[in-house]
Amino acid sequence: MISNPSSALEYCRKHRRRFLTELIEFVRFPTVSAQPRHAEDIKSCAAWLADHLRHIGLENVAIVPTPRHPIVYGASIRSSGRSSGLPSDRPTVLVYGHYDVQPPEPLREWRSPPFDPEVRSDDLFGRGASDDKGQLFVQLKAIESYLQTNNELPVNVQVVADGEEEIGSPNLQSFLERNASKLASDGAVISDMSIRGPCQPAITYATRGQLSLELTVRGPQQDLHSGSFGGAIHNPLQALAEILARLHDTDRRVAIPGFYDRVRMPSSAERLRLARAGPSDSQVLHNAREEFGWGEAGYSAFERITLRPALTINGLAGGYQGPGNKGVIPSVANAKLSFRLVPDQNPAEIERLFRRQLARIVPPTVRADVRTLSAAKPVVMNPQNDFIRAAALAYRKGFGADPVLIRSGGTIPVISTIREVLRAPVVLMGFGLPDDHMHAPNEKFHLPNFFRGIETAIWFLAAVAASSRWHGRRQENEATASALAV
Amino acid sequence: MISNPSSALEYCRKHRRRFLTELIEFVRFPTVSAQPRHAEDIKSCAAWLADHLRHIGLENVAIVPTPRHPIVYGASIRSSGRSSGLPSDRPTVLVYGHYDVQPPEPLREWRSPPFDPEVRSDDLFGRGASDDKGQLFVQLKAIESYLQTNNELPVNVQVVADGEEEIGSPNLQSFLERNASKLASDGAVISDMSIRGPCQPAITYATRGQLSLELTVRGPQQDLHSGSFGGAIHNPLQALAEILARLHDTDRRVAIPGFYDRVRMPSSAERLRLARAGPSDSQVLHNAREEFGWGEAGYSAFERITLRPALTINGLAGGYQGPGNKGVIPSVANAKLSFRLVPDQNPAEIERLFRRQLARIVPPTVRADVRTLSAAKPVVMNPQNDFIRAAALAYRKGFGADPVLIRSGGTIPVISTIREVLRAPVVLMGFGLPDDHMHAPNEKFHLPNFFRGIETAIWFLAAVAASSRWHGRRQENEATASALAV
Repeated sequence: MISNPSSALEYCRKHRRRFLTELIEFVRFPTVSAQPRHAEDIKSCAAWLADHLRHIGLENVAIVPTPRHPIVYGASIRSSGRSSGLPSDRPTVLVYGHYDVQPPEPLREWRSPPFDPEVRSDDLFGRGASDDKGQLFVQLKAIESYLQTNNELPVNVQVVADGEEEIGSPNLQSFLERNASKLASDGAVISDMSIRGPCQPAITYATRGQLSLELTVRGPQQDLHSGSFGGAIHNPLQALAEILARLHDTDRRVAIPGFYDRVRMPSSAERLRLARAGPSDSQVLHNAREEFGWGEAGYSAFERITLRPALTINGLAGGYQGPGNKGVIPSVANAKLSFRLVPDQNPAEIERLFRRQLARIVPPTVRADVRTLSAAKPVVMNPQNDFIRAAALAYRKGFGADPVLIRSGGTIPVISTIREVLRAPVVLMGFGLPDDHMHAPNEKFHLPNFFRGIETAIWFLAAVAASSRWHGRRQENEATASALAV
Repeated sequence: MISNPSSALEYCRKHRRRFLTELIEFVRFPTVSAQPRHAEDIKSCAAWLADHLRHIGLENVAIVPTPRHPIVYGASIRSSGRSSGLPSDRPTVLVYGHYDVQPPEPLREWRSPPFDPEVRSDDLFGRGASDDKGQLFVQLKAIESYLQTNNELPVNVQVVADGEEEIGSPNLQSFLERNASKLASDGAVISDMSIRGPCQPAITYATRGQLSLELTVRGPQQDLHSGSFGGAIHNPLQALAEILARLHDTDRRVAIPGFYDRVRMPSSAERLRLARAGPSDSQVLHNAREEFGWGEAGYSAFERITLRPALTINGLAGGYQGPGNKGVIPSVANAKLSFRLVPDQNPAEIERLFRRQLARIVPPTVRADVRTLSAAKPVVMNPQNDFIRAAALAYRKGFGADPVLIRSGGTIPVISTIREVLRAPVVLMGFGLPDDHMHAPNEKFHLPNFFRGIETAIWFLAAVAASSRWHGRRQENEATASALAV
């Protein structure tokens, strides 16, 4: 039985306008973690966010430096257990989100500037509006709604706001490892994904892993005149095109020997369930605003982006790119590549297979180098875990509809880290929409989902608290946040 | 019998330092014709050049506007014929060169800034130092050396300095056509190519034609999250790579049906002569600073870049190109392509064949557009023409060595235009070197060649004047420059 969090719900309804104003302020920081020129913006945003955590009532707020971008931390732990010498009788929820964002390029395709957030109709437009500042804010505003009314939360909460999620969270694992005992939680909630529609909630129980690489092909030591040398020197741009073209076969499968060896085939029951819960081929195409599907034969579009791995060229660059043309054979060509991986593919093994295949197909007339940018393992969760059950209940309250269980094609590097380091179950409670243009120009957050999301997150904490399973189970969770090892 | 141009030679030796200072001033203008932001720089340079033509003694100097970048004109026509009512008894030489330059990118590879010319050892470094400001200056300084000592030239001279050569001279043909009778000349000289070495002069009797295209491949209407859609949408970057990879076959020939149909096979005598006159395979690779050769089987490197056509990818762009990576399927991918063509290939026909092949190989999952940027026909000249004979004699005087006859892999769009519109023979008298890095970072001009070039150009005008063939042949060459139709 969940106690009705009526005062928190009332508070959040009353302060919608201010919540939006604050979110706009948050989105205004150009926290592009991939671009070194934004390092200071990220610092400023971390300071703003830390202030905000204090302001909503969290304690032990800290800006934890890392070799690159800081992590922002805050907590609300009931101290009664500590002073009485008794263990806390409440479960602890780790709220993970990130305040860094994807690069906004190409800028000219934005209707309003990416870091000058604008409300048009029911949507807030801006880079990070949904991924993930808006969705992290959903959780923070739920916490605020409790703390500013009841003066306490129904559970213990620890907030970890990552500043490097969009570059693969390179420093999060060591942060979690260094602070494993302090961060020990009964489960984690992450709001950084899409549901099916404005009124169709969904719980994601699987995400794809990722392996991001940079492939550089070098030819002549410097650019050459294409009149003087065209036809007698292997052009690195051409070599790159030839190499990339050989990474898929004519059946549109990834043409790397061994690539599919560890791909787990889901049961026909799961495929059937996903076919019902997930979008149809035409819905996937509609969300992509594309006319034609593409991909591996034998799978639906939704299966291709969730159950099956993929290799995507994210960027190509080389030679002359300005107006007109330039008669040049460039010395270097560059491709950004990323794999999306599914259980039981392992990023480290896929990298070895890729490098081995590259050694086979790169011609001796050019040189190819590969640099690994980031890696994350694929994850499948047990849909029966307590946090997922609490989330389902919360969606029912917040959205008035039962959530479906779906897989996501995206990657959240921290999930496997939390599971491995903290050994805590994770629930992915998304509030984004499939057409929110995450990672793309004109990213937006649907404001009705922002507000419904806050109510859902309030219900979620109540549901976790109500779960009788927690009582007496945790022994050593007090004072968790007292002194973070940094 | 050539009269010894001793005072002109003496003058040019005496003013070397000033000539270099002036050339540095000329190279300082960033006259990048392909880049619209440099339009004003080109105007300023045209004004400077017009002043300079007046300053060295040319008359009827004009800055002729075109739809894009102006042509600078100047002349020296002996007026005696006009006042006496008799035709001029002197031949008229058209000197063609260009004052625009290639884009300097990639900037970080320049040892000194491209438009802040720097002398290091015996070379002047800067964009346009040899292509073509330095080589045009060779001709201008030869003209100055005559006009400032003898007060007249041994021939009539008309100078046409193009501001659009590096973008394919789109407005030159109509300029020549509009002014055909006024520009009528006995021959044209162009200094815009390389010789074999600092002391190995060469006369280029053939250039490749060119067809420059931009290929755009479009996929989804806007960038997509590669996690959410990777595997189910045909990535335009991948489609572009696949298309480009199919434009060469496994024998490294251009894989466009009909492409080689009109390629003229040179006689075995010419191949033998070129094998002796041109660089060896290892010299071509040395000039390119490349270890490995590449290209069509059955041909030497020099044949591949002169006798055989080629297709070069000059630039690739699409998706994310910044630091790190971005999880994106971009909506658009772009390639800059250029063909180098040989007799009797026709750019318009090659364009049709290319478009037809593209229609065959572009998959239905993406859309491809082709934009033609420029085109120029291949040219082969008769090595026996009088101007070429005069140039050979001049090189012997200026360099102390006989020039070899070679073909060039480059393209000078104006050659075929001059031949077709003015019906005048052309001689290509280069003073650049194979390692001058034309079109590439660290372009340079070898200063000993600059000074030897001026003396050679002085001898050239004397040799043309001495040719008895001219006398009495031209009837209507007076007052050529009086009123240019603009």
